[in-house]
Amino acid sequence: MSTQEFKQAPHKLLVIPGPIEVADDVLLANAHPAMSHVSPDFIPVFGDCIRMLREVLFAPNSQPVLTAGSGTLGWDHVAANVIQPGEEALVLNSGYFGDSFADCLETYGAKVDQIKAPIGSKPSLTEVEEALKKKQYKVLTFTHVDTSTGVLSDAKGLGELVKRVSPETILVLDGVCSVGSEEIRMEEWGIDVVLTATQKGLGCPPGLMVLAASKKAIAAFEKRTVPPNSYFASWSRWLPVMKAYEAGTGAYFATPPTNLIYALHASLTTITKGSPSLEDRFQQHVAASDRVKDFVSQLGLKQLAADGKKDGAHGMTAVRYPEGLKATDLLPKLVAKNIVVAAGLHKQVKDEYFRIGHMGITVVNDKERGDIEYLLTSIKEALAEAGYKP
Amino acid sequence: MSTQEFKQAPHKLLVIPGPIEVADDVLLANAHPAMSHVSPDFIPVFGDCIRMLREVLFAPNSQPVLTAGSGTLGWDHVAANVIQPGEEALVLNSGYFGDSFADCLETYGAKVDQIKAPIGSKPSLTEVEEALKKKQYKVLTFTHVDTSTGVLSDAKGLGELVKRVSPETILVLDGVCSVGSEEIRMEEWGIDVVLTATQKGLGCPPGLMVLAASKKAIAAFEKRTVPPNSYFASWSRWLPVMKAYEAGTGAYFATPPTNLIYALHASLTTITKGSPSLEDRFQQHVAASDRVKDFVSQLGLKQLAADGKKDGAHGMTAVRYPEGLKATDLLPKLVAKNIVVAAGLHKQVKDEYFRIGHMGITVVNDKERGDIEYLLTSIKEALAEAGYKP
Repeated sequence: MSTQEFKQAPHKLLVIPGPIEVADDVLLANAHPAMSHVSPDFIPVFGDCIRMLREVLFAPNSQPVLTAGSGTLGWDHVAANVIQPGEEALVLNSGYFGDSFADCLETYGAKVDQIKAPIGSKPSLTEVEEALKKKQYKVLTFTHVDTSTGVLSDAKGLGELVKRVSPETILVLDGVCSVGSEEIRMEEWGIDVVLTATQKGLGCPPGLMVLAASKKAIAAFEKRTVPPNSYFASWSRWLPVMKAYEAGTGAYFATPPTNLIYALHASLTTITKGSPSLEDRFQQHVAASDRVKDFVSQLGLKQLAADGKKDGAHGMTAVRYPEGLKATDLLPKLVAKNIVVAAGLHKQVKDEYFRIGHMGITVVNDKERGDIEYLLTSIKEALAEAGYKP
Repeated sequence: MSTQEFKQAPHKLLVIPGPIEVADDVLLANAHPAMSHVSPDFIPVFGDCIRMLREVLFAPNSQPVLTAGSGTLGWDHVAANVIQPGEEALVLNSGYFGDSFADCLETYGAKVDQIKAPIGSKPSLTEVEEALKKKQYKVLTFTHVDTSTGVLSDAKGLGELVKRVSPETILVLDGVCSVGSEEIRMEEWGIDVVLTATQKGLGCPPGLMVLAASKKAIAAFEKRTVPPNSYFASWSRWLPVMKAYEAGTGAYFATPPTNLIYALHASLTTITKGSPSLEDRFQQHVAASDRVKDFVSQLGLKQLAADGKKDGAHGMTAVRYPEGLKATDLLPKLVAKNIVVAAGLHKQVKDEYFRIGHMGITVVNDKERGDIEYLLTSIKEALAEAGYKP
């Protein structure tokens, strides 16, 4: 690796639920000189990313797929590869992203049922069990962390439920806002597909679709009676490429985003081989999340998640504005303090709340950076400036 | 813009037909601190990329679409948006990429005819005219520069032909290996869709699908009777997002690769506002190409393109090994001189030739960099070391 030094330009602290703050070494890797995508120097870097992703997901037998794209493209991968037109899918809807995943599945011909939860909660295991007993679903999808509400789904509970009630069903975890910041034990919990992107818990710039498929998901793909009905998202194209990069030979379907692969390599190396350990990393996210959630509660603010500390994500918090205040009262005051949080996203309530991201180096390197203390103090000050008294 | 200085790490000279050498300022932009994709600082950067892309393509009335992805994803955009299942497409096949584009169109339900040219040439205008007179095609696609053979298609001639013989047909230029290094006057020539990627003539790292659609192509999309049959490539999703970014408001469908957008902004600013002018840039690529092609001819080497200087691309050259020599005799000797050229790609002849890229800063900044002189001298030396006597 290079001994070059690089320090990113001063900038506002980005504490939204992704993109998140990126470490200097990851940004330097993103500025790697141009490389051939089939160079013997590059191929093992790609292969390492595949191997390290298995570690992050506790899924030694899974097949990762990494392509240029975004988390959204991961839905196309599921919809075009593990389910066929006319087959049944059940989408657990805990916010904005459930609607979208359902749209995507229908675009490729799946028949979709949804279980929609009220804003701030998620479908209960009992509701899901009833649905699974009524109909045989090929695929069950859920949003692990709904970025629009900050609600955390019970991945482990859903895995156990599917194993017990409908073991043929492919269980798909949309981990765009959870991989790297929430514990996911893919194999132990019985998750068949995890899909994500690089700009959240994985601590990279955006631009990569990241997915891992279990042997069961791959078998479902291999048993298809019609070919995948996407070209760019086709596993017929990508699986041989992934196997070739891992074997050290390389192969071509579409040019991989080489610089982003270097960036991901830098970040995954820190996550899987650096300090803290992966387990400690997850615990640090829990602790930071508790700290943020306790703080906003002590300020008298409500969260979108019905019970923030119990049902809330550990990488983000969705906070309702106090009565009488709105986005324009608070967010510009935070920007003036060089802090960028996110506005609301769920279409029914988007003007009623804001979102804080607490993932990656903001959490793990908080001791040196002091991001969280600065964030919380600034929120308190901005609220006071806006006339709010707890 | 930042006043930060950055010099990329020393590395082998990458002279393949993409990815190409990237300028320091573009790599620094790729290492931009994390930014929100809906930040008021980022939105105009994305808007500028859309506006500058119109300048590069001489297409002031076109609608650009920029998403995370690769050039390959541009085919999905065409196949899922401008043509409907059951409609007819004609693919002009001048190498590897014609086969792939045809596969992609068929994946989304188009009926595809192909005109295949012998290796090293392209379908003649006469053959295309005959085909267009026999059947009404919704879409006609051609590979502007086939990266597997280095053959340059006659974009202007095809535009005139379509206008004259089949004015309803949507003319699609696959410009993955041509945009930025070959003159393309999209509106004047009557090209309806240009698709490309960032890692070649646009001088960026890979990871962005770049496309521009004429009013005629957009109208064809709007007249669809069935929705686009891709989710991630759907213009129903992307056109409102592109319009919002250009209008300065931003919108969300999938997270754009923010760092790559900064990188593209840096590169497009140089291309459209720097020196040389766009016209001079194209001329410099012609001159560099002539120099490379004359040099290899003087060495007694043949090119894959039947008449290299007449039918060959100006951003790359495909060179046959001299009798008795093969890849392993030549390419490692070039690597030892810190030069990376590309092996053959066209499956029927891939062991018989190698490919040189001469695009972007290697051409335009050759005076300071000396890339081309070093490349040519090194090829001559490597051939001599391998025992070849011209």
